[in-house]
Amino acid sequence: MSDLTLAVDIGGTKFAAGLVEPDGRVVAAQRSATPRGGDAETLWKTLTGLLDRLEPPPGVAGVGIGCGGPMTWPAGEVSPLNMGGWRGFPLRERLAARFPGIPVRIHNDAICLAVAEHWRGAGRGSAAMLGMVVSTGVGGGLILGGRLIDGGTGNAGHIGHVVVDPGGPPCGCGGNGCLEAIARGPGLAAWAVAQGWSPGRAGSPQEPGRASEPGGEPSGQGGELYREEGTATARRLAADAAAGDPIALAAMTRAGRALGVAIASAVNLCDLDLVTVGGGLSQAGDLLFGPLEKALREHTRMGFAGRVRVVPAALGQDAGLVGAAALVIAGDRYWSPGP
Amino acid sequence: MSDLTLAVDIGGTKFAAGLVEPDGRVVAAQRSATPRGGDAETLWKTLTGLLDRLEPPPGVAGVGIGCGGPMTWPAGEVSPLNMGGWRGFPLRERLAARFPGIPVRIHNDAICLAVAEHWRGAGRGSAAMLGMVVSTGVGGGLILGGRLIDGGTGNAGHIGHVVVDPGGPPCGCGGNGCLEAIARGPGLAAWAVAQGWSPGRAGSPQEPGRASEPGGEPSGQGGELYREEGTATARRLAADAAAGDPIALAAMTRAGRALGVAIASAVNLCDLDLVTVGGGLSQAGDLLFGPLEKALREHTRMGFAGRVRVVPAALGQDAGLVGAAALVIAGDRYWSPGP
Repeated sequence: MSDLTLAVDIGGTKFAAGLVEPDGRVVAAQRSATPRGGDAETLWKTLTGLLDRLEPPPGVAGVGIGCGGPMTWPAGEVSPLNMGGWRGFPLRERLAARFPGIPVRIHNDAICLAVAEHWRGAGRGSAAMLGMVVSTGVGGGLILGGRLIDGGTGNAGHIGHVVVDPGGPPCGCGGNGCLEAIARGPGLAAWAVAQGWSPGRAGSPQEPGRASEPGGEPSGQGGELYREEGTATARRLAADAAAGDPIALAAMTRAGRALGVAIASAVNLCDLDLVTVGGGLSQAGDLLFGPLEKALREHTRMGFAGRVRVVPAALGQDAGLVGAAALVIAGDRYWSPGP
Repeated sequence: MSDLTLAVDIGGTKFAAGLVEPDGRVVAAQRSATPRGGDAETLWKTLTGLLDRLEPPPGVAGVGIGCGGPMTWPAGEVSPLNMGGWRGFPLRERLAARFPGIPVRIHNDAICLAVAEHWRGAGRGSAAMLGMVVSTGVGGGLILGGRLIDGGTGNAGHIGHVVVDPGGPPCGCGGNGCLEAIARGPGLAAWAVAQGWSPGRAGSPQEPGRASEPGGEPSGQGGELYREEGTATARRLAADAAAGDPIALAAMTRAGRALGVAIASAVNLCDLDLVTVGGGLSQAGDLLFGPLEKALREHTRMGFAGRVRVVPAALGQDAGLVGAAALVIAGDRYWSPGP
């Protein structure tokens, strides 16, 4: 029996699989681009191909899976938004058949990122934390009483659908005025374009894609579903804001304030100590975090709420694997539904 | 050793104490008006006088206390908003000294009402529930994973300070646009007056105070701090709305929509099955619940969120005592901080 845990991270951009030590270190990992338009078995073969290349030792302790939502939970029949080939695909069951006799556990990818930050990242020791990811989408996971909160159907943590402006823009969920509708990269960029902004007009560099640029996709902190098409424009927007473009600045302020208001609602409702923010857009720094902090403090005036801190997520591109592994390795805190 | 638990419910309008059976039945209770302007010892003597009249049998199993917030928790040094005589008063410690050797436990009154509904009321069996009270204030408590959520400092459940309109009216908490600023009885009435409404102009009865009237204070479902001055006007407003007054109707619609938006945010964030709504204003029926349901459904469009049900609280005037007793009797679910 090995003491390694197999971790799997399934996203719209890439699949990853890794072996994780009991202390959370990823000791081997394989990655593969998500096949565009792949059907159910093509996607499955992409995953099994990864696992074959990874060559897990006999007798891994368990399998932890993070996957883009929605899914039935804890059954793990997945229908990831950006992977049309999997609709109700029994991912947990298929992996359990391949790895019999050991725990095989699954959760939403954004929840796995929150778990990773709590277990081994910026949230260590927090009793009441929200772990967020802000990029092409806005998602998260809740840790309360030092334990992962699943909610009634495993969907707790959807901070992206806290309403920040009831008369606001339509959201992909079918509602309107959700945080995600305003603060997701593409939403942010679309608003700026509607105000008259065009990419690069402030003289910011024309080449997108440097990992150090704000809003860039390769941050490794976002769930894969949060790093899809559309962030390149948001990255240009952040660069133009940094160069002083007034519309780009207004767009970042608008997104930052929306984040601050939604976080304030979560803090007041859940009495949070800490919020970690990862994902590509979180790299915009003060352009986003300045207005965020200002709105947050305006809307958290009760004594208990004032203590909350908002900090950047600490883990890098392996965060998804670390969080998935934690479902097995630290199941006492992060896995409640039984074996 | 008796199997009865002593329950204490401390509010701005009245103090109550009762003896509660292991199944949640209140078998004896005493009540006393909260002394206006009383200093710390006057308030304490009011409570001990109640306890003397109640004559708890020797060897009660424990003492459960619900008290208006804020308080330090779990230490239980209370500073109830509407009781200036108690500022940092060590209520838990004083009762522990009077009842040595048994558990003495305390929580916010709104949280006790949520616990009561989950334990013995409309929320029985729910894994993920918000118990709300809507009257002079708007408060609540969260039950997730079948257990009371305390948050980092015992303040989880403050649904009244979820932001529903970031540019909205100022709130007593120091912020603005909170649910409570819009939907609390006095806020509702003040808005209607500003729109040109005056009480009774629609020909509704001039005599306030019937317990069956919507918005009335003696509903027994609200925490005491939620039944203070100001609800008489809200009760008239509801009566005028029922009589067809357009401003009064608009006011009820505005409050109902604010409730629906805040509840939607909580449902999306916490993946709730159920929301119970008590307190005087909840008796306004469809005038409030109609717009509430409409706004809630508009803002809960993800699959998991659509299942949530919003129902009236089921327990009557003893709810506060029942919830306080549950901190002791069902401490495995409702009391986490140790003995």
